[in-house]
Parts: sequence; structure tokens; C-alpha cells
Amino acid sequence: MKDNTRRQETEERVLQGTAVSRGIGIAPLHVVARGFSAPEVYSITDVDAERERFKEALDITKGQLSALQKRIEAISGEKESRIFEAHLMMLEDKAIVDRVNEAIAERKQNAEFALYAIAQNFLEAMRRVPDPYLRERTADIEDVCQRVLRNFSHEEPRDGAPLDHHILVAYDLTPSDTASMDRRQLQGFATEMGSVNSHTAILARSLGIPAIVGLQGAVLETRALTPAIIDGYSGKLILYPTPETLLHYEALRSEKERVRHRLEAQRNQEAVTTDGRKITLSANIELVKELPYVKHSGARGVGLYRTEFLLLEGEQIPGEESQTKIYTELARSLAPDPVIIRTLDAGGDKLPVEPLLEPEPNPFLGWRGIRVSLDRPAMFKEQLRAILRASAHGKVSVMFPLISGIMELRRAKDLVKESMDELAARDIPFDENIDIGVMIELPSAAIIADLIAPEVDFFSIGTNDLIQYTVAADRVNYRVADLYRPTHPAVIRLIKRTIDAAVQNGIWTGVCGEMAGDLRLTPLLLGLGVEELSVGPHQVPRVRHAIRALSHAECAAMADEALRTPLSRDTLELTSDLAMRYYRELID
Amino acid sequence: MKDNTRRQETEERVLQGTAVSRGIGIAPLHVVARGFSAPEVYSITDVDAERERFKEALDITKGQLSALQKRIEAISGEKESRIFEAHLMMLEDKAIVDRVNEAIAERKQNAEFALYAIAQNFLEAMRRVPDPYLRERTADIEDVCQRVLRNFSHEEPRDGAPLDHHILVAYDLTPSDTASMDRRQLQGFATEMGSVNSHTAILARSLGIPAIVGLQGAVLETRALTPAIIDGYSGKLILYPTPETLLHYEALRSEKERVRHRLEAQRNQEAVTTDGRKITLSANIELVKELPYVKHSGARGVGLYRTEFLLLEGEQIPGEESQTKIYTELARSLAPDPVIIRTLDAGGDKLPVEPLLEPEPNPFLGWRGIRVSLDRPAMFKEQLRAILRASAHGKVSVMFPLISGIMELRRAKDLVKESMDELAARDIPFDENIDIGVMIELPSAAIIADLIAPEVDFFSIGTNDLIQYTVAADRVNYRVADLYRPTHPAVIRLIKRTIDAAVQNGIWTGVCGEMAGDLRLTPLLLGLGVEELSVGPHQVPRVRHAIRALSHAECAAMADEALRTPLSRDTLELTSDLAMRYYRELID
Repeated sequence: MKDNTRRQETEERVLQGTAVSRGIGIAPLHVVARGFSAPEVYSITDVDAERERFKEALDITKGQLSALQKRIEAISGEKESRIFEAHLMMLEDKAIVDRVNEAIAERKQNAEFALYAIAQNFLEAMRRVPDPYLRERTADIEDVCQRVLRNFSHEEPRDGAPLDHHILVAYDLTPSDTASMDRRQLQGFATEMGSVNSHTAILARSLGIPAIVGLQGAVLETRALTPAIIDGYSGKLILYPTPETLLHYEALRSEKERVRHRLEAQRNQEAVTTDGRKITLSANIELVKELPYVKHSGARGVGLYRTEFLLLEGEQIPGEESQTKIYTELARSLAPDPVIIRTLDAGGDKLPVEPLLEPEPNPFLGWRGIRVSLDRPAMFKEQLRAILRASAHGKVSVMFPLISGIMELRRAKDLVKESMDELAARDIPFDENIDIGVMIELPSAAIIADLIAPEVDFFSIGTNDLIQYTVAADRVNYRVADLYRPTHPAVIRLIKRTIDAAVQNGIWTGVCGEMAGDLRLTPLLLGLGVEELSVGPHQVPRVRHAIRALSHAECAAMADEALRTPLSRDTLELTSDLAMRYYRELID
Repeated sequence: MKDNTRRQETEERVLQGTAVSRGIGIAPLHVVARGFSAPEVYSITDVDAERERFKEALDITKGQLSALQKRIEAISGEKESRIFEAHLMMLEDKAIVDRVNEAIAERKQNAEFALYAIAQNFLEAMRRVPDPYLRERTADIEDVCQRVLRNFSHEEPRDGAPLDHHILVAYDLTPSDTASMDRRQLQGFATEMGSVNSHTAILARSLGIPAIVGLQGAVLETRALTPAIIDGYSGKLILYPTPETLLHYEALRSEKERVRHRLEAQRNQEAVTTDGRKITLSANIELVKELPYVKHSGARGVGLYRTEFLLLEGEQIPGEESQTKIYTELARSLAPDPVIIRTLDAGGDKLPVEPLLEPEPNPFLGWRGIRVSLDRPAMFKEQLRAILRASAHGKVSVMFPLISGIMELRRAKDLVKESMDELAARDIPFDENIDIGVMIELPSAAIIADLIAPEVDFFSIGTNDLIQYTVAADRVNYRVADLYRPTHPAVIRLIKRTIDAAVQNGIWTGVCGEMAGDLRLTPLLLGLGVEELSVGPHQVPRVRHAIRALSHAECAAMADEALRTPLSRDTLELTSDLAMRYYRELID
């Protein structure tokens, strides 16, 4: 008798996670287990010889990291390479190195085990700290220690090893894991940890690698070389796909490729509706290395340049000169297209600008965005002067995040004026008429948009925060995720109110939140009167196609109806209907 | 030569904290040091005898707690006594008791030290958990252990000890500290820890004892018997007051007393403006024991009955029968005046309804208020049935907290309907026409007040949350406290919008947040058209006096001007000017 209760090992199975980077990958799995395992432990007699072994392993590691750093610098922007600087600094860290040498001398432990034990101790302590930034750093420490441990046994570090086509499954990925990934070999990656906003997810999107996070239990439930499909649209990792599934996904992949090529071929076409309304379609980026994607996408400049990369180290923020270099490169590369540089948006779910002694009970309602900049005017003015200096080399605008009212805006503008005076005193050129805009992402800002509009040159609606505060629902908290609805009537009214205030004051309104990239909502945003959409470079071709398929008049009529609709789901249906009618093939 | 750099020990000095309960106290200090000190440690030989000593100390403690519980039950509401039930349960807790017995047997430690060490272990672990509820519980564990330790040495527990007039200074106060306080002896209390919303602060206000929290370093910087003044208006603790300061505060105390008596004498007068607009002036309470204060204040019923007392244990929530008893007592005592019962507002800065496995990164944007109730419909309907049953015995209304949109409201109303059907099936009487209202405390609710109004009988604006979400500033986070402004133009517009929607739909609007008790803002709220104000019982006489001093027409003209004013400080000045003109003596 056949035992039907026992699941066939090779039966098709689906693991569900959160899609963070679009695309389809088909390849066997490469599974990386969590953390690193304990090395052999034995007693030593010659303390000096053992310390020498440790020093040697450290030196080899430093050499590898420097080489890796140079390689990454060559193929990508400055930012990624700075991660390795932090790793190199860890190898010099007295707190670790001295304690290992101490353990060798006092406990007569072999160097590998001494390092392992001390690192584990550190990691354990750091994991207990309720600070997301510190917790993230554990990956860095693990990464470096693993590397040093490998260099004791003179194992070949994996960066050199050639890899076949594969989908990577891991508990979590370290920054150097993702930085040394080879796009041609890697068909996708799936991790148990991570979020839509993690460094890894951002990098995956920027490299165009399909990725899934939050795949709980994936490492335990998968085996190396299992044939698999990664679906970066729906967040599915399919193990042992049946021939039917395989056929389906191969067809889907070809279809997506075909659509992508077709859309990319239209990159020189204007983002204009069928009835002639022109929309400025620009790109959101945060790394200089994404610039080629911006060009390739046909975006008309950068609508949101995030400057949180300044914080990625958590250490010293780069000064005026370093920032000037980056912003100038940006302005020059994009000219004559414009770039809108958003000043530092630290805090909240992003990294803090300095370690906070007491963690904030509600960081989203805390010290973040412009609040931090206004409280640290010297730091803020370094950034403002760097932005101003770049404005002499292209079309640069500056934008403030998280403005809540008039007083904050005026203080920020006063500091721009001071920065201009300081540059003028130093005879450094800048654009005296630089455009100043604000993010409209707090309910208070949208409600008094009519009071703010006369004092700025443009509005950019940050829908993620605007929605989150309007309905008081943290968008990453699954318990209340259902309340986070872009089509909530209050949200629609706030967007409308913001645009009306802008029109009355002769300034333009863009949208740079996730809503701008959701093709179901494009008809609604156009209908409400949005004049600019700024989305990820990979999304630009799809949004352009959507705009070119729509009639503005029809969208406006639909938006009027949406403004009279009390239920968010009905509004979602209204706008989705138009999207499905005109570009069904683009809706995932 | 005189050394001027060395400060005189007895020189007047001021410690600044946060005022949480109004009033002036003049008395010597009684200083309680933090935590409890280690008992003597010695080896024992007779394990059974030592275990017997431990059991005896536990039994004595249980007896004391039971007696204390009965005493508190007699003089106050049911709630306070339930705290002692939790303490009693801790004494039966196997995790503690068994481990003490184990340490006695295995380590031959004396029972006092074994208990002390194990309790310290627990406390240390609990303090590390990033969960405010668990952290609060450490005070309970400390409290019980201290009591047991005292009972080993047969020291007189302090509840029995007579105390002279004094101001209590402590690191933090345990629930039994505050419950056993004697109003006649205690002239005030000042703690290093605690917040405006802590249990201790709430109890202090309800007992009318001046109190200050957040007085960092107070325990170290003060000595027993230091002459002092506590100023519960400004949050000052003044040590070694000069004769001038003393005279000033004695005069101030007399003046405040005089004003209070004069205002209380007007308790039967109506809350009506000079030009005849009647305002419903009611009280916010959360304990049945506060009912006498409501009567004494002359409030017209209860505008906000908080039911979070259901959670204070963190254990089982009382069922339908227990709740019915409490709500019925409330309804009966107040009849014919009304009581508005707000359904459970768990989460956020309040206690969770159940332990959360993962702490929420932003509890204020998380699982709280009606969201919890809708996710736990069985629990919610127990409360709804209890409220409905009480409605047969007085004038009861039900109010939902944290409504964000129409769907939530309709789901909540469906559950009211179901609860009615269930009671009808059991032949239990209730008010079929019970009024249903909502808190307007999210920006989304205020923005779509016109859509919500047709579906409810009244609005009550919860200004604390409304302000906090509108400007995205956690009101207890000192880093952004400056942004939390009740007169922010966006807040004023949302209040106006809410009232307009209510008037157009023939329902009334009240205010039950802190704004309602701020006499500088009374002219603004009246001018915007608020019809009900609900404040703490002790504040009712002052607010009544303010209303009776104002002309509604003048307030309305001022409010119109405020609605055109872009800066919050200018609006604050407008409304303060009216307040100062008509009741300067009441503004602290």
C-alpha cells in the first residue's frame, strides 16, 4: 500500500515571501546556512606563535578586502566601496583584536576559537539592543569574522570561486554578499530576513535582480541544487516546479522580456497623454551608480535624489567637499535634465544621524527628516552648500523632507540663504535662483498647502508617509497593514487639496512615493492633476507607457467621481478599471 | 577670602520636572532610595528550617496584602484592589518560589539572600525587554519582594507607620505606594521616573495630590527632612526655600484655595456664555471611585469614561458580568446625567490587550483602539453587551476610539447590532436607541467627518492624538515636543471641518482631549463651535468659570481670524488674549 501521508520530496512546493525586486529567475538553489559554525578548539602553548597566526589571518583578510573594495569601486558607485572601509576598520578594532590576543595569552585558546567566541559575544549583545541600526551591523561583523576564520585555514574565499547559474537562498545577506554578486550567474535571491527597504532589497532593485525577503524557514526547508523558480512579482519561491509550472514561467519570462524591450524602445517618446497633457516623468535614485539606469530608462532627470547614503556607515557624515563632488557628478551627468536633491532624511525607519542614547518609542513620530537638520545646523549647512555648489554645474533643485508647518520651512530657507552668503564670501559660484521645494508627506503640510505654496517653487507628495500618518498605520506593521490604503478618501482629498493650492500659486506638484509606480493608480493621480511622477528607473518605461495610453480628460472625470466616493475599495476599482482598459498587459 | 564657588548646603535650589497634578505643597522631604538593598548573606545548614522561614515570610506577606486589599477596596473603587491580587499571585508564582527553595537546598543560602538574588535576576532580565508594559511590572515585583524581605526580619511594614506632613521624593512609586498614601499627611510627591500618563500620575490627579515626575537625579540630590515646596503647576521642587519664596508660595496656596472654593460654590450654575450659548460641561474619568468628584464638580455627567482599567492587570479581561456591574453602577449614580463609555482603547502608549510576541516599532501607529476590538470580536462584544445592559439603568452612550474610516465604523456598528440581538434573545433589557459616537482623533477621520457624520450620533475630538498624527510628533518625545502645537493651523482647520460636518448633519461635537482643559484655548474652542467640553473633574469648576466669562460672538470672531492665521504662535496669542482679558486670575 502506498503511503500517501508522506510528502514526496520532489513534489512541487511554494514558499511565500515578500517580493522586493521584480523579475523571474529559473535555476537551481544555492543555500547558505545561518551565521558561521564554531571552529575547532584546542589548547596552545606558544602564545606568540598563535598571536602571529592571528595577525597573519587578519593581514590576509585586509588584503582581500582592499582588493574587493577596488573591484567594487571600479564597477559601481563610491558608496558600496565605503562599506568595505567599515569592514577594514573592524579589523583594526581594539575591542576585538586586543581581546582575542588576551584570550590567547590567558586562556591558551587557539586563535580561531578565541575570535569566534569573542565575536559571538559581541553579536549576542548587539542582537539584544532594541536598535535596528545596531542589529543591522551584526551582519557586517559576521561577514568580517567569517572571512578571517576562512583565512586561518587558507580556504579559498568564495569571491574567487566561479558559480553556475543559481538562485541564492540565505538567512540574511551581508553587504559584501550582495556587492560581490555576479548578475550573469545570479538568477535571484531569497532571504528569511530583510524588508522592502533593506539595503539588500534596494541594491537588488538597482541591479535588476529578482528578490524575495521575509521567506520564513526557507533555509531549513530547502536543499542545495533543488530546481526552483523565483517570482519577484508575487514573492513566490517555487521548489521542484512541475513541467507545466516551468512552461508557464518560461513563457511569462519571455513575455516580460518582450514587453520590457518594447517599452525600453520607446525611451525617447514623451510622457504625454492621448489628449496632449505632458507629464514630467523622472527617476528616484540614491546611488550615483544608478545614473546609467536613469539614462537607459529615458527618464527626464531625477525627481528624488535621496541623500541617506551619507549615513550608511553610521560614522562621520561626509563633509562639504565630498558631498560637493557627488552632487556635482550627478548634476553634470544629468544636464540639461534636472535633479532634485532631497536634504538628509535621517531617523524614522532610516538610520539615525547620531546614536540615540534613549531609543524613541515611536521613531516615525520622532526625530527625523528636516527636524534633525534644523537641530544640527552646521551639518545641514554643509549639505546645503554642497548642493548649491553643484547647482553651478547643472539644473539642481533642493527639497526638504517632513515639513510640518511654515516656521520650519522658513528656518530651513534662512539656512539656505546663510549658505549662499557663505559661498558668495568664498567666491564660489552657485545658482542664485535655485528652486526650493518641499515634500508634502505630513497631513499638516497637505492641509495648509495653500499657506506653504507661496513660499516654495514646487511640491513633491511623499505618499508613503502621507498615508501612514493620515490613517495612523505603520506601513511595515502587519497588524495594521490593511489600513494602509492609498485610495482612502482622506488621502485622495489631501492630494487634491495640495494640487489645488499649487495650481492657485503657479507651482507644480509631483508624486515620488510608491503610489507613483503603482500602475493601477496612474489614472487617479493624472486625474487629480499631478504634473510630475518620479519612480524607480526600472519602472520608468512602464509608467511612460501607461501615461501614453491614457486620456487626461477621462482620468479627470474618474478622479471627480473618486472624490465623491466614501470607500477606498470603490476608488481603487474606479482607477483600476481605467488601467485595465488601457494597459492590462502591464498590470502584474 | 570667602570661597564663593562652593555652594551653601542650605541655599535655595530648584529642581525642574514635569507637573502632572496641580497644587502647592509645603513640607519637609521624605526620600526613598531606588530599589532595595541586598540583605545579609550567610550559609545555612538546616534546609527545612530555612524553607520554613521563607514560607512564614510569604504567609505574613499574603496576610498583609489581603488586609491592604480590603482596606483599599473599602475606600476606593474596585480597580485599585485588583493590583494587590496580582501581587498576591506573584507570591504563588512557582518560577520565583521554587527557585528560592532550590537555592536554599543546593547553595545553602539563607532565604533572604536567595530571594533577593533571584528577584534581581528577574528584574534585570525584565528591564532589558523593550516592552514598556513589562518594564512597568518590575515595580510590582520590587514592591512584593521588598515586602517579603521586611517580613523576614519582622520589621514593621511602613503602611502601619504614622507619617508626619511630608513631600515624598522617590525614584519611582509602586502602585501600592500610591494606594496606601494618606492624603492628609502627604503634601505632594516627586519622582525621577514616570510620565503624565503613568498610573501614579493619574491616581495623584484623582486624589488631588500635587505631583511632579521626570525630576532627574532628585533622589541623589535631596536629603531627608530638607524643607521644600512642591509646585504642581510649574513642575518645580524648591529646596531650602528662602523666607521670601515661602511667603510667596503660602500666599499663592491661599489664593488658589480661595479661587477653588469660590469656583466650587458655583457648581450649580450653568456653563453658559455671557450671550447665552449653553455648553455641555462634563467630566473625563476612568475609575468608579472618581464619581464623587464628578458630583462635587457640578459636571453634567461623564463625557469620556475610559475603560482601559480593564487592562491594568495585563491578565484576563473581566467578562460581561463584571463589566455590566461597573457600567451599571456608573449609569445609576450619574442618572439623569449621561455617561459616554468609550470602548477599550488598548495599545499605543497604553497597555496591550495581550502580550505581543514582537514589539511594534511604532506602537502609536500600530495595533490599538478599535483595531484591537475589531480583531477580537468576542472580547469586543462582551464589552458592548455590558455597555448595552447598563444602558437600561441610565443615560448611556457608546463611543469608538481611533476610527480611521467608514468600513471600520460600519464593522463596529454591526457588532453593536449583533450584541443587541444576543441580549434580546436572552430577554435582557437595553436602550435600543443608544447613542453611538466616534472619537475624531485621526487626520483621516477629521478629513472625512462629512462622510462619517450621517452614520453616528455625536463626535468627540480627541485632540491629543489628532495633533500628534497631524504633525507626526510623538507628544512624549522631548526631541519633537516643540512641534506638538494645539494651535497649529492644520489642527484648527481639522477641528473646524469636523464641527461643520457635524452641524450640517444635526449632531453635536465635543472635545475630550487635553485642549479642553487648557483655559487659554477655551475661547478658541467655543469660537470654533464646540458644543461640549469634557475635562478632569478637578478642572470642571475652572472651565465653567471661563465659559461663563466669555461671549460666544466675540470668541467666534476671534476664531474666524485664527482660521486665517498661518502661524500657531499667533493663534495662541489671539485666544490667550481673550482668556487673559476675561479670567486672568485662572491662568497659571
